[in-house]
Amino acid sequence: MALFVQKYGGTSVGTVDRIEAVADKVRGFKQQGHDVVVAVSAMSGETNRLISLAKDIQSKPNAREMDVLVSTGEQVTIALLCMALEKRGVSARSYTGSQVKILTDSSHTKARIQDIEVSSIKSDLEAGRVVVVAGFQGVDLDGNITTLGRGGSDTTGVALAAALKADECQIYTDVDGVYTTDPRVVSSAKRLEQITFEEMLEMASLGSKVLQIRAVEFAGKYKVPLRVLSSFEEGPGTLITVEGDSTVEKPVISGIAFNRDEAKLTVMGVPDVPGVASKILGPISQANIEVDVIVQNVAADNTTDFTFTVHRNDYDAAEAVLEKVSAELGAREVVGDNQIAKVSIVGVGMRSHAGVASKMFDALAAENINIQMISTSEIKVSVVIAEKYLELAVRSLHTAFDMDVDDSVSE
Amino acid sequence: MALFVQKYGGTSVGTVDRIEAVADKVRGFKQQGHDVVVAVSAMSGETNRLISLAKDIQSKPNAREMDVLVSTGEQVTIALLCMALEKRGVSARSYTGSQVKILTDSSHTKARIQDIEVSSIKSDLEAGRVVVVAGFQGVDLDGNITTLGRGGSDTTGVALAAALKADECQIYTDVDGVYTTDPRVVSSAKRLEQITFEEMLEMASLGSKVLQIRAVEFAGKYKVPLRVLSSFEEGPGTLITVEGDSTVEKPVISGIAFNRDEAKLTVMGVPDVPGVASKILGPISQANIEVDVIVQNVAADNTTDFTFTVHRNDYDAAEAVLEKVSAELGAREVVGDNQIAKVSIVGVGMRSHAGVASKMFDALAAENINIQMISTSEIKVSVVIAEKYLELAVRSLHTAFDMDVDDSVSE
Repeated sequence: MALFVQKYGGTSVGTVDRIEAVADKVRGFKQQGHDVVVAVSAMSGETNRLISLAKDIQSKPNAREMDVLVSTGEQVTIALLCMALEKRGVSARSYTGSQVKILTDSSHTKARIQDIEVSSIKSDLEAGRVVVVAGFQGVDLDGNITTLGRGGSDTTGVALAAALKADECQIYTDVDGVYTTDPRVVSSAKRLEQITFEEMLEMASLGSKVLQIRAVEFAGKYKVPLRVLSSFEEGPGTLITVEGDSTVEKPVISGIAFNRDEAKLTVMGVPDVPGVASKILGPISQANIEVDVIVQNVAADNTTDFTFTVHRNDYDAAEAVLEKVSAELGAREVVGDNQIAKVSIVGVGMRSHAGVASKMFDALAAENINIQMISTSEIKVSVVIAEKYLELAVRSLHTAFDMDVDDSVSE
Repeated sequence: MALFVQKYGGTSVGTVDRIEAVADKVRGFKQQGHDVVVAVSAMSGETNRLISLAKDIQSKPNAREMDVLVSTGEQVTIALLCMALEKRGVSARSYTGSQVKILTDSSHTKARIQDIEVSSIKSDLEAGRVVVVAGFQGVDLDGNITTLGRGGSDTTGVALAAALKADECQIYTDVDGVYTTDPRVVSSAKRLEQITFEEMLEMASLGSKVLQIRAVEFAGKYKVPLRVLSSFEEGPGTLITVEGDSTVEKPVISGIAFNRDEAKLTVMGVPDVPGVASKILGPISQANIEVDVIVQNVAADNTTDFTFTVHRNDYDAAEAVLEKVSAELGAREVVGDNQIAKVSIVGVGMRSHAGVASKMFDALAAENINIQMISTSEIKVSVVIAEKYLELAVRSLHTAFDMDVDDSVSE
């Protein structure tokens, strides 16, 4: 008898038939005696439909009203899923983010969860009910509706699991687990049985779209066992867990992540004095632009080149900010490239293995792929390359790190 | 400088273009220096779309979840209208029923408003904002989303006007006012400049679909001046006001209302003893069936016939209840007819005029229309007739009471 928090994404609840299928699945868990809390997304297409209505009116819609608008998407799903459960004789009750309540800060369209009231949910569970919560949304201290940003339903699921001390948070999606890399790019990519939170975090943040990064952070922070699995096929999915839980020997590299929506910007000839980095990145941050990789070369002739990457959508805005900053700092010029991609190898195993990075660079060099930027962490090595080489780079690395052979550790 | 509460119905906000037109209209009032609170319905078609999703799952959807579902319709409109206002430089803020909060009882799908918190709205108005409130919805003491039933957005508008002590509640709709009768049935029907609350109440309850009956009750109770007008054409509409405010001489009859969705049921041969009426109507009321006209004939041979009308949709359910009750009471039989209609003449003038009823009966007799039931109040006379005579009856009465001549008092 366990308590499961299950999250079903937009495609899993994309039609009335699929909602009925989710209800069947949930009833199965109830019949086995488990308690179930469900977090759901909007029916697929619905959020885009709503955003498009808004954009017909305002090209940059008012953020507070945008949240009022798009939060209706999940509200529709929770009601329909509860009806489907009631139809099956499963007592159920829906909650919007405000009703739970899922307290967030007031950053409309990208709010962060601060607290979750679990008392109502707990009494419903005690009364034998399935609780269905609208994902992606919350409420601020003043009662304004907020949303967590795209993919925020994963975060809702994990945050609920943490607050309720659930036995497992199950993320049902349209893929059957986490793969060594994107199977659309490498056909021999394999499903991983387990992956650590840290690896998943690097995979997610680097463009592996299975889980939202904040959901993984949350799960890692509160040690919520997280399982990604398919809502359409049976199967164990991939368990995301703390290191050391695993009984299987860890491979050096668990997966290859990549992200093609990147752009890089360089401020050339910046005076090499303390405080320059913050003078450059402060205004970027104030413009609400998120920075990914940052590289500063060693100074020569008392100036340095400062390079960083941003999401491609933010490229023009970032360039405008930099032109202004560059003039103030007396830098030489701003150059940029929005046709780049980032490829990363990820694995907790690399902590104890030397030579992982050089093996990566060798593999890329063998394909004549020029490395533009390098960034490393304890469990990953990322390189920025020209976007046109992305697929080639991923396939080469997948082979170089022995991930596409049949006796892969992932099976 | 007045405070107006304006309610825009589904067709008035049916598309993005129409929402933009409403925003233009609201900006016009703001530019004249007025304060404006807007209550809106769901975009036309949206509520039906949502109901149909629900019915694909449950033929009788769970009432609590139905409210969660359909309340999203107005929530979409408030967000879009606020965006359209902001686009025009008009500061605006949206509120769901829960956010206001519009406190109701817990009768899902037909809740009644008990209280409205106006403090947030008042501070927004003081800050120069237009306030946009989702019509049709509220919240109960436990935080459950409720809806007021179809047409409930009118009630929201009036209740807001009452709570805010607004100067006028303006109901924008797709007709340009209240007519002497339905212009689709009588082409010479005329728009009324004024009508009293009591008359409007009788007109609304008897099937004149311009305003929801509870909205009129509310307006009358709190003496909120109510104006019905078109959101598509300019014009003064019809002012609904307390009797005596009018400077024009009142006609005897203000209008003719009718309702074709009626059915009648008779319990024949009921023992004529005290308490019989409640033994019949008690179970009907417990089955949530609303009763309209009730007629009990004078007893003969110690038994009586008890007849009442219900909405046609409730006919089968009412008949089933009566069969059971009839057996318990030892009545002779239950007979019914669901092909009937009700026609009523309405006017505060009839209080001081004799002969109104007989003039009505004469007009119907002249057309050979048999009267099946008669019911009267201080300001109306209703008859139940076979549905097939409905149009003929309405046209005859419109002529008999001098409403379709050119020098009609309504112009």
